[in-house]
Amino acid sequence: MGIVVQKYGGSSVADAEGVKRVARRIVEAKKAGNQVVVVVSAMGDTTDDLIDLANQVSPLPPARELDMLLTAGERISMAVLAMAIHDLGHEARSFTGSQAGVITDAEHGRAKIIDVTPGRIQAALAEGAIAIVAGFQGVSQTTKDITTLGRGGSDTTAVALAVALAADVCEIYSDVDGIFTADPRIEPHARKIPRISYEETLEMAAQGAKILHLRCVEYARRYDMPIHVRSSFSEKEGTWVTSADKVAAEDANQEGMTMEAAIITGVAHDRSQAKITIVGVPDKPGEAAAIFRVIADAQINIDMIVQNVSAAATGLTDISFTLPRGEGQTAMTALTRLQDSVGFASLLYDDSVGKVSIVGAGMSSSPGISARFFEALSEAGVNIGMISTSEIRVSVVVAEVQVTDAVRAAHAAFDLGSDEVEAVVYGGTGR
Amino acid sequence: MGIVVQKYGGSSVADAEGVKRVARRIVEAKKAGNQVVVVVSAMGDTTDDLIDLANQVSPLPPARELDMLLTAGERISMAVLAMAIHDLGHEARSFTGSQAGVITDAEHGRAKIIDVTPGRIQAALAEGAIAIVAGFQGVSQTTKDITTLGRGGSDTTAVALAVALAADVCEIYSDVDGIFTADPRIEPHARKIPRISYEETLEMAAQGAKILHLRCVEYARRYDMPIHVRSSFSEKEGTWVTSADKVAAEDANQEGMTMEAAIITGVAHDRSQAKITIVGVPDKPGEAAAIFRVIADAQINIDMIVQNVSAAATGLTDISFTLPRGEGQTAMTALTRLQDSVGFASLLYDDSVGKVSIVGAGMSSSPGISARFFEALSEAGVNIGMISTSEIRVSVVVAEVQVTDAVRAAHAAFDLGSDEVEAVVYGGTGR
Repeated sequence: MGIVVQKYGGSSVADAEGVKRVARRIVEAKKAGNQVVVVVSAMGDTTDDLIDLANQVSPLPPARELDMLLTAGERISMAVLAMAIHDLGHEARSFTGSQAGVITDAEHGRAKIIDVTPGRIQAALAEGAIAIVAGFQGVSQTTKDITTLGRGGSDTTAVALAVALAADVCEIYSDVDGIFTADPRIEPHARKIPRISYEETLEMAAQGAKILHLRCVEYARRYDMPIHVRSSFSEKEGTWVTSADKVAAEDANQEGMTMEAAIITGVAHDRSQAKITIVGVPDKPGEAAAIFRVIADAQINIDMIVQNVSAAATGLTDISFTLPRGEGQTAMTALTRLQDSVGFASLLYDDSVGKVSIVGAGMSSSPGISARFFEALSEAGVNIGMISTSEIRVSVVVAEVQVTDAVRAAHAAFDLGSDEVEAVVYGGTGR
Repeated sequence: MGIVVQKYGGSSVADAEGVKRVARRIVEAKKAGNQVVVVVSAMGDTTDDLIDLANQVSPLPPARELDMLLTAGERISMAVLAMAIHDLGHEARSFTGSQAGVITDAEHGRAKIIDVTPGRIQAALAEGAIAIVAGFQGVSQTTKDITTLGRGGSDTTAVALAVALAADVCEIYSDVDGIFTADPRIEPHARKIPRISYEETLEMAAQGAKILHLRCVEYARRYDMPIHVRSSFSEKEGTWVTSADKVAAEDANQEGMTMEAAIITGVAHDRSQAKITIVGVPDKPGEAAAIFRVIADAQINIDMIVQNVSAAATGLTDISFTLPRGEGQTAMTALTRLQDSVGFASLLYDDSVGKVSIVGAGMSSSPGISARFFEALSEAGVNIGMISTSEIRVSVVVAEVQVTDAVRAAHAAFDLGSDEVEAVVYGGTGR
């Protein structure tokens, strides 16, 4: 009898009906002969409502108390879910992150998991019960205070528990059928990817595909825990995220598959970025370092950086980088203060940019991928602003209004589409 | 520097404004030089809302999960209250019942406190912080599961913590100014009682005065912890609940007081009861035992019992008892099943009854109290259905429509009134 960890996001348990539907699904997994551990997020908008409440009493609530407050959300959803399962005639026991043994550091609001000691979960499973665990939360090893894991926390809880319990699989449920070759809202011919490697998933997620959070994929990769991304609204197989070896072996096993795997796995896009260009930077050692030290000190995560070759005549160069749009103002303020000491000419800010990326593990052994990508964009009339690459990814920054054209052009150029149009709603996975 | 434990009910923290008001009050107590520990109930209707949610997914939710669910209510209020205090520039840390060391048995929904180990509270106080503790909840010593204490739980948490911390006083805040000689909604001349003994308070509470829960008063009496019952909406002194000795000593100290304390302290009433009469019970040993065993097995708390002298001609007697109205149907069903074996004639059920009681420690040494009470009722045209007495109480069951007349008649007969009409709203103290 195997152990299955299932994670349900807030949209899957938004109301009593949703909770009952999920409960039936959990009971099915149990009836199929599995030991079932369920990680659940807060119901629907609960977290936002609690944040509103906090803001009503304090403009800047202390992080420890905010964590205490927000963890009430999962406490509610997990208890209600356990009740719904009980109502179907199966025993279910809910556990807080602390009770489930999710031990973290003391960084409230973005705690990292240090250890998982799921003794109480194992005891519940041994007694034949279904264990329901609050996602997103843990307890600090040093202060014994309640912590939250930050964005993507519930997915990370699920993978971490799956690893600690040596589960067969960690199933991540949301309202989409799996990971697609592109966002189906943009590319109606997008196809569900049956199997994808951790590395490709990380690149897709990092490049804006809102499927799984980076953190949970990194955790799964480190311990080689298979993730099955699927919809709580359908019975379809979703997308299996595993090691590249397993993806290749499974692809080879499939009847009718060619011996060569697809070179490109999917197209990701991201409309949440802005671009800052620093014009006329003196091309001498230390200038770039000074600039990016300022950005780093402001706690801003930058993404792509491009520095042009300096013009020989002037000895000046331009440096461009992309960053989350919400942090644009902070970065511009910090850089403006630096203008005199660095002596650059001016700053340009552009928040009408988008990023489009092609991702594929087969890319590194296939020359000409970038060329084919750029040609497709050119044929679609899309102008490229910036380029960056990794072993398994090529990303370009384009005008935001051209993101859709760029995604479709790339999708077609690498034959990613299916003939059918998939009827899916593409969304996030909640926390 | 003394330790003060304050308890605020749900009506005091019903919304963000209420939370801020309570926060200011707590900070005042801290500024006055006290170490302050605050016990808080769930905000406003939170508990009812959570129970509604539970009922939407399960008609009979398991008690363990219901406790897990309901304790989310205090988790929210305590975190938000800590934030509001923080916003006033003072450090506050919230603690769950479990973190505060409230150790209970494993009886979900009505757990009893076994031990209080407030090490984390003491550490917070030692560091100059205000400690906010979730009322109504604890953790089971054996199963380590989260428990709730049942009705009056938050008051009990407050007294238990006050005892464990050797506090100077346990202040119980609600929306009324203290304990009154009668319900001011019924008797406008009711007067706030400045001092009252544990014993009298217990009798008042048991007889329907919705001031303090029996359980918390019993706890306070056992450890002689003074309770100060007061309003969170005013700065007035409330009612001090202490040992009879201290009440007497303090009364003697007051200038202008007569040497004799008032004989009657207050009038309590209760409209929540029903009366069952078992007609024609064979007057032989074992019949009453059989009847009340059935009632006890159905977990029904009965209050007054009256058995008439049996009629010599028939050898039959009638037995009447009162019980909470909500349990009437269960009791009638249980008794009906017993009809054949006991052989009684019929059952009468009356849910339009009320109970009116006079309570006073001076009663036992003052003859004629019952007579004066009954005369007053008679003059007011109130018919007495049943009578029961204790050392410091006389209670009568009357028609529900005559409860108001009976309370006013008793209040006047024992000169309990003040000349002024107190402008108060009389309500419960929440959990």
